Amino acid sequence: MTRIRFQQSLEDLKENLLVMAGLAEQAIQRAIEAYRVRDLSICDLVSRSEIAINRMERDIDQAALDLLAMEQPMAIDLRFILSVIKINADLERVGDAAKSISDRVRHMEQMGVAELPVDIPRMASLATDMVRKSLQSFIEGDAELARGVLTMDDAVDSMNRAAYKALTKVMEEQSHLAPQALNALMISRSLERVADHATNIAEDVIFWVQGADVRHHKSLTKKNGSQPVP
Amino acid sequence: MTRIRFQQSLEDLKENLLVMAGLAEQAIQRAIEAYRVRDLSICDLVSRSEIAINRMERDIDQAALDLLAMEQPMAIDLRFILSVIKINADLERVGDAAKSISDRVRHMEQMGVAELPVDIPRMASLATDMVRKSLQSFIEGDAELARGVLTMDDAVDSMNRAAYKALTKVMEEQSHLAPQALNALMISRSLERVADHATNIAEDVIFWVQGADVRHHKSLTKKNGSQPVP
Repeated sequence: MTRIRFQQSLEDLKENLLVMAGLAEQAIQRAIEAYRVRDLSICDLVSRSEIAINRMERDIDQAALDLLAMEQPMAIDLRFILSVIKINADLERVGDAAKSISDRVRHMEQMGVAELPVDIPRMASLATDMVRKSLQSFIEGDAELARGVLTMDDAVDSMNRAAYKALTKVMEEQSHLAPQALNALMISRSLERVADHATNIAEDVIFWVQGADVRHHKSLTKKNGSQPVP
Repeated sequence: MTRIRFQQSLEDLKENLLVMAGLAEQAIQRAIEAYRVRDLSICDLVSRSEIAINRMERDIDQAALDLLAMEQPMAIDLRFILSVIKINADLERVGDAAKSISDRVRHMEQMGVAELPVDIPRMASLATDMVRKSLQSFIEGDAELARGVLTMDDAVDSMNRAAYKALTKVMEEQSHLAPQALNALMISRSLERVADHATNIAEDVIFWVQGADVRHHKSLTKKNGSQPVP
């Protein structure tokens, strides 16, 4: 493979990862829409995209592996490909979270509508925003942007904690709403997990970009601390 | 690096991953012990091992990356190193699950003791058994054993579903026990996640062992389907 074709393969890999990211983001948005309007037909779309996301994860992994095996890339290219493998796994888990949310929505069908002290759509919009920004930092190789994602995680965490507290109170004081409150609590947790995956992606971007910088100054042959922790 | 030294480095990597696995397994067992006897001093141990696990994850990743960069290994060795990177991430998340469980135990301190319809220790023993077996399949490169882990996942899933159902009922019918029931439900979910990570590890082992077999017959240069899903 020529250098130019190799660079093209890296670009393809990136493009495919972005398609995967788009699917994952859409899956979350659909799951939340299904929650908001209680529409089970949207849940079917989420299930279908989960299958597509899983297939795509395998394909991207395979393409990354082939590039590693055939090209034996060094330094920054190697780190890039490893980042793709890790981000790929995180995006697949964002798809899983969307599926979990839509499973919860299916449960809701048998329950009455309840007004609950939690703003799921707002949490979802923050979490998907984090996924989007983490991907943008990946596209642009921008460690600053990635660091911004890490700070956003606190907001989602504290929303999730507040939801937990408020919804537990509902369960205690209005036990007939316990199933609905529990459902909302589970969805809130899934969204908190989406935010965690965005955080992982941002960390991978920092590793990729900055590790590469570090590598310019530091020998690769330096033995790194792979000793067991005492 | 000579071939012999390279093989030694792969062995070191494996050894370190097994130490990491031991830490993760121990963290779960301690968290469950803390739950069982409601002992917060054990929670401190879990928090400390989470820090050790996180540090070890970074070290193993770095060692794996260095091997990839310096040795540019092919076929089975490449797949092995990539499996280490993936298993490493799963073990770190098992450590996270242990931390979540011990956080729940800390919450329990302010609550009265409640008899709940869920056998957390039994679920935990199944889940840690899966982690152990998945690691054993990794040590022995045994795809059969790994496949056995996949079937165990169903048992943990159905225990988690049963716990969900029973504990929701408690919340509805004995709302004063809602906080305890919710806590137990969260712990059950964390254990279900541990089982999922064991499943991921088993799948990585199958990928490593069988992928390597497949590679004997199939050219690496064959273009694999890295096309976007329509």
